[in-house]
Amino acid sequence: MNFCSQCGGPVVLKVPVDDDRPRHVCASCGAIHYQNPKLVVGCIPVWKDRILMCRRNIDPRKGCWTLPAGFLENGETAAAGARRETLEETGATVADLRPYLMVDIVHIHQIYLMFCCRLAAPDFHPTRESSEVKLFREADIPWDDIAFTVIEKTLRRYLQDRPSGRFPFRADKIEKRDLIGN
Amino acid sequence: MNFCSQCGGPVVLKVPVDDDRPRHVCASCGAIHYQNPKLVVGCIPVWKDRILMCRRNIDPRKGCWTLPAGFLENGETAAAGARRETLEETGATVADLRPYLMVDIVHIHQIYLMFCCRLAAPDFHPTRESSEVKLFREADIPWDDIAFTVIEKTLRRYLQDRPSGRFPFRADKIEKRDLIGN
Repeated sequence: MNFCSQCGGPVVLKVPVDDDRPRHVCASCGAIHYQNPKLVVGCIPVWKDRILMCRRNIDPRKGCWTLPAGFLENGETAAAGARRETLEETGATVADLRPYLMVDIVHIHQIYLMFCCRLAAPDFHPTRESSEVKLFREADIPWDDIAFTVIEKTLRRYLQDRPSGRFPFRADKIEKRDLIGN
Repeated sequence: MNFCSQCGGPVVLKVPVDDDRPRHVCASCGAIHYQNPKLVVGCIPVWKDRILMCRRNIDPRKGCWTLPAGFLENGETAAAGARRETLEETGATVADLRPYLMVDIVHIHQIYLMFCCRLAAPDFHPTRESSEVKLFREADIPWDDIAFTVIEKTLRRYLQDRPSGRFPFRADKIEKRDLIGN
């Protein structure tokens, strides 16, 4: 950040009065520009004993497999965002969303919130963002080609819980040393 | 947003290629400036049968009672943010944080994440942000002077769960018509 988004003046990094950390502050109008983590919302869409995954058609990690997820937008609930991302990336409509796993990824300023859900019907298709969309049985999950650490973590956690039939909410975190893709 | 924070050029609202909604896009350098909801993290700090609350010493809702909560900062996990806010607003150190309630407040682009926790010791004090900090038994909670709808909702939900001794993770939302304070 170099310029103030309100007045166009130059910003400087300084600690505002009554604050405890440096912020981008406009040298002209005094506006303080806060930067905060973003929420990424996504789904584990299930049909019978299979999980819907998509092969990324865009960078980063183009060609690798993932679960549908993306940045929460202004104007939607977290569940609505997860549903929208799933529709955009897989063409599938999901139902019965329940918050399942929150993952802090501090060094990239992101928090993932993944929902358990079921496919409303086994209908899905490739999209602009996904070159392939497919239901996987546990034994067939392409573990060597998962796009992001957080997605691998989500799948493993879900599969650990599945035999019990109970999916209590869980929190986890990813540190830089854990990374495969982000 | 009027100006590009990267190059200082004017921004226009338009739908970028491969996007589906208007964004602030720089007319000079082409940078796209996304705006996303912010996460507010906070605590329900408990000591025996009492809940720690603080009286706001700052606007909005100065003079009303609240639970410690504030914007998650870059560089911290959600739990670390909730712990920091509690220390800043009440002087108290908390332990055993468990995610408890997520509340979407769509129209102000915020998501609250409230943690159950206990005071490490019954030590707390007024702070710059809180003119008074106090432990309340259920019967003494100042329901008529709660600062924000989301805080009232959190307290009522917690007190409903308390007799069972179980605090499963819950999701809720607040719409404009529900509001008392935000």
